[in-house]
Amino acid sequence: MTTPVRDQVQHVFDRCRPLTGGAVADYIPELATVDPDQFGLAATVLSGETAGFGDVDTLFTLQSVSKPFAYALALELRGFDAVDAHIDVEPSGEAFNQFSLDPLTGHPRNAMINAGAITATSLLPGDADEATPALLDYLGRFVGHPIMLDEKVFRSESETGHRNRAIAHLLRSVDVLEGEPDDVLDTYFRQCSALVSTRDLSLMAATLANGGVQPLTGEVLMPPLVLRRVLSVMATCGLYDGAGDWLTNVGLPAKSGVSGAILAVLPGRVGAAVWSPRLNEHGNSVRGVAAFRMLSDEFGLHVFEVHRETADVRPGGER
Amino acid sequence: MTTPVRDQVQHVFDRCRPLTGGAVADYIPELATVDPDQFGLAATVLSGETAGFGDVDTLFTLQSVSKPFAYALALELRGFDAVDAHIDVEPSGEAFNQFSLDPLTGHPRNAMINAGAITATSLLPGDADEATPALLDYLGRFVGHPIMLDEKVFRSESETGHRNRAIAHLLRSVDVLEGEPDDVLDTYFRQCSALVSTRDLSLMAATLANGGVQPLTGEVLMPPLVLRRVLSVMATCGLYDGAGDWLTNVGLPAKSGVSGAILAVLPGRVGAAVWSPRLNEHGNSVRGVAAFRMLSDEFGLHVFEVHRETADVRPGGER
Amino acid sequence: MTTPVRDQVQHVFDRCRPLTGGAVADYIPELATVDPDQFGLAATVLSGETAGFGDVDTLFTLQSVSKPFAYALALELRGFDAVDAHIDVEPSGEAFNQFSLDPLTGHPRNAMINAGAITATSLLPGDADEATPALLDYLGRFVGHPIMLDEKVFRSESETGHRNRAIAHLLRSVDVLEGEPDDVLDTYFRQCSALVSTRDLSLMAATLANGGVQPLTGEVLMPPLVLRRVLSVMATCGLYDGAGDWLTNVGLPAKSGVSGAILAVLPGRVGAAVWSPRLNEHGNSVRGVAAFRMLSDEFGLHVFEVHRETADVRPGGER
Amino acid sequence: MTTPVRDQVQHVFDRCRPLTGGAVADYIPELATVDPDQFGLAATVLSGETAGFGDVDTLFTLQSVSKPFAYALALELRGFDAVDAHIDVEPSGEAFNQFSLDPLTGHPRNAMINAGAITATSLLPGDADEATPALLDYLGRFVGHPIMLDEKVFRSESETGHRNRAIAHLLRSVDVLEGEPDDVLDTYFRQCSALVSTRDLSLMAATLANGGVQPLTGEVLMPPLVLRRVLSVMATCGLYDGAGDWLTNVGLPAKSGVSGAILAVLPGRVGAAVWSPRLNEHGNSVRGVAAFRMLSDEFGLHVFEVHRETADVRPGGER
Repeated sequence: MTTPVRDQVQHVFDRCRPLTGGAVADYIPELATVDPDQFGLAATVLSGETAGFGDVDTLFTLQSVSKPFAYALALELRGFDAVDAHIDVEPSGEAFNQFSLDPLTGHPRNAMINAGAITATSLLPGDADEATPALLDYLGRFVGHPIMLDEKVFRSESETGHRNRAIAHLLRSVDVLEGEPDDVLDTYFRQCSALVSTRDLSLMAATLANGGVQPLTGEVLMPPLVLRRVLSVMATCGLYDGAGDWLTNVGLPAKSGVSGAILAVLPGRVGAAVWSPRLNEHGNSVRGVAAFRMLSDEFGLHVFEVHRETADVRPGGER
Repeated sequence: MTTPVRDQVQHVFDRCRPLTGGAVADYIPELATVDPDQFGLAATVLSGETAGFGDVDTLFTLQSVSKPFAYALALELRGFDAVDAHIDVEPSGEAFNQFSLDPLTGHPRNAMINAGAITATSLLPGDADEATPALLDYLGRFVGHPIMLDEKVFRSESETGHRNRAIAHLLRSVDVLEGEPDDVLDTYFRQCSALVSTRDLSLMAATLANGGVQPLTGEVLMPPLVLRRVLSVMATCGLYDGAGDWLTNVGLPAKSGVSGAILAVLPGRVGAAVWSPRLNEHGNSVRGVAAFRMLSDEFGLHVFEVHRETADVRPGGER
Repeated sequence: MTTPVRDQVQHVFDRCRPLTGGAVADYIPELATVDPDQFGLAATVLSGETAGFGDVDTLFTLQSVSKPFAYALALELRGFDAVDAHIDVEPSGEAFNQFSLDPLTGHPRNAMINAGAITATSLLPGDADEATPALLDYLGRFVGHPIMLDEKVFRSESETGHRNRAIAHLLRSVDVLEGEPDDVLDTYFRQCSALVSTRDLSLMAATLANGGVQPLTGEVLMPPLVLRRVLSVMATCGLYDGAGDWLTNVGLPAKSGVSGAILAVLPGRVGAAVWSPRLNEHGNSVRGVAAFRMLSDEFGLHVFEVHRETADVRPGGER
Repeated sequence: MTTPVRDQVQHVFDRCRPLTGGAVADYIPELATVDPDQFGLAATVLSGETAGFGDVDTLFTLQSVSKPFAYALALELRGFDAVDAHIDVEPSGEAFNQFSLDPLTGHPRNAMINAGAITATSLLPGDADEATPALLDYLGRFVGHPIMLDEKVFRSESETGHRNRAIAHLLRSVDVLEGEPDDVLDTYFRQCSALVSTRDLSLMAATLANGGVQPLTGEVLMPPLVLRRVLSVMATCGLYDGAGDWLTNVGLPAKSGVSGAILAVLPGRVGAAVWSPRLNEHGNSVRGVAAFRMLSDEFGLHVFEVHRETADVRPGGER
């Protein structure tokens, strides 16, 4: 990574550090115990080189950032037809824990809201004993090391996750979910409790930016069509209620989680991640949203940014 | 344009011609009188060179394809703050003539649904006598010649547009619309009645693809931030109910209209347009949707398509 | 009327007079000019004798209290089938100016919300020139004298009633309304502007309580099945959002209007009316709601009050 | 009971017997095994004398007909304030298993939909071991003998009641439900599995008609205000989606259940019950709805029927 780029990322980090607005998630008791001042920011180019600042090696739980990966694994292992028969790809504009299923199809609107994410996890082959290690192994391949779980967070979610239990039973009652709700939730709560660092997340983002190929190991982790699908859904549904606002102002496929993490992807260019626990009213990290807005503006990363001087007259097929 | 590219576009045209499903819009009596078999397809590269097939010179009314342009003009003339105080940028997942305003902000969800489009038109400076010619002049600069109106369609919409009148009065009652509903609707129905050809539309799309610069005249018609905004909103809200499906499978900012037109943009690469009057259940041209799916697949135009072999390790700022 | 009854009504009046909470309706500018302290209360037994207290002879506009009467006239003149083909009888639990039509039938939920009331008025035979005098004549027969209009309120509503115009155009667009929206609204705004006193309203209520027979003139103004229908709909839909609360705690068919009037009926016993302009958050008169709660409690008027000592073992058919 | 009355009831029974439309509930597998042709009809006057026809002694499960009784017991044992802090009294117009809570209060709309009924049961004092026998004892006092449970139906509901589990977990997640969802559902599924005959149900209805006093034992089972509340809620919310239609056309407080039972009350006059398993699209017994329409018409039982000839000029307080 060139020094000017590293300096620009550092500059964004420095300017976001003073932002202490927002509040740590408390819907799971265990999440509320985190030190709210922590802040990590990392960007990884397609060579795998990472520029990291702040608490980039502190571990936190993946929470909803696990959703695009579980969705990708379900798409790869079960195929588009099987998955699309259960989960739609429409933006919902709804809060992350919203119930409502599409009134026409009866399906969860997309795999980024809880109803769709629980369904995606339920589509992983096998029961919880089989699906959980398969999913954790998959996540581990993105970060290059085995994934540990935060057992306290897992138990906390498992005991207090009444809304997720409600969602799972509802999905079961309309036959969107085929397995036992408690069984599926066991895997789902575990994937949410997976521990990663900001540096790990940045590498995960870079793998998506790099066409699904892990930059350091060279392993192909997402086939092109699965990757395209996952990025498309992240672009419209990745940031909870603020989806339109995010796509308009930041313009990157991304996914946030209530632990305060946000991962974002500039396809073909760079992956990046922020972690800072204080959340805005939509459940997105305050520093994370601010950092990505600045990164997008300063680097011109918005996918619909047209650089006039370099506009290319050749159609895409000739790239 | 290279011969292989032209051949590929022709190939898409030939394969979509046999698709005769769908039905011509009849909600405006005058629209129902069109010959449903007509079909035009055109693609324009950034040099302004157009490859056109079929009825590319037949005129039809812009209808909702006028929306992104009226929105752009309002953004440029009134500024982001003034426009954003009235219209949100969130996907709605709703039908084009849906009423519902955002429950929190009270604003139309975006400028691509009728409520938001009527509001955008109301934000153009001046009354109808001033706003209408300004907007038509603006549209004319994209196509390079003066815009004529289809007076029959205008009168037909004006007389039977009860739902649009309902929307305008509702917007007035909640003070989103500031002018007289009948006055605003006069301009709105006129912009919908603007006559263009598929070739015109393709040039409009190419202007967006070319960073807002009209390829043939070199005139700057959209400032970069307005263009980015318009493309972002088109990407999530341009195709009525099928927005998520469109972004997932075609992956291009686009806008459709009930006359059977669809315009799509690959930023920095190419603009394209299809016109064929038969519509699917969402109100989008059947041949248009099919043609863009094929174009996207065959040319790899999807904005979230990552071309592994050419992945660029340099961050966006260095492009 | 016996002296004890008159004394009890006076007692309720005296206890409600100190209630000065709430705010005068201001959605029509002309309504906001009323003296908010005014308060009239009247009860009329089936002989036609009225006990009145306070400003019982001051005139005010009927507003939504006109709705059950327009509905009754439409039912009588057009028949149940014709009316029920356009307006449902389901409680809506919605605010008085809510748009939403039943998702299955596409009809307004009931004739007490604006959408249903405008539809009921549209079903009166003839155009506005015919329907308006017919409806005003009908209202006049309830009060025993010709009905005057408040022309200022009429013009005020006509000029600022954007939401009602929105509703009428929406109804027209889905073919629930068959006439011209502006024509129907002309009659509707006039019926809302009809001037009555609290004493008049009490006589209107007593006519309903008396089986549809005007107590003083002996004229039959509602056939039994129309009366039963109107009272049923008033029981569940007469008091805007607070419908369930009203039926539970007061237990009388009733109708309120934004001018501050409430009319209530104890079938077979008594009619009563309150007028006082300050409204609660649901748009119902604060003193009116309080007075009817007290009247219901003190006189045991609730329709589901079972008086054990006098419980009658004979089935209803033998009454 | 006089012979003419008995003859009229028999007449209704005979005319409803040929109605074989509708379908037996199958959402609980065990319910689907019933003989669909069965039909019982009973009416009980306030002396306790019952006229019964058809399968009046066959046992079936109470299902939702248990809801008003559990609500009454919660109101009596916990008080109005405690219960009203959790359950509203607004009609919902929604299907019996609908989720949606009031958007403003966050409470279930009323105690007749599942969400409200589960909440009412949760408000009974003690845990399931205490609440279940207390509620079954209470039900037994209405019918004059101990209540047995259908264990097969109980187990069937317990195993397949995913939607009710979803509702209970949702209620728990918003703190409307305070106990353990599984614990509350155990009591709830048991009350639904309580076995009664049509004759039993008719006596339950007569107890409500008789001011809360069991006609045969003379035991006071509902205080007057609890009774008034329960009848009010039954009047607007007792028959699922068809609530407005029921109140308009039948005009009696009533409650239906998916086993095919309907109980209805003419306060101060008579109680009646029908049981026949085939249900209409709203989940109400086809023969039951038809029988009560006829009974209401033939006996003039509608609560808003005003009998002109006998209209009483005395206000209610003097009755």
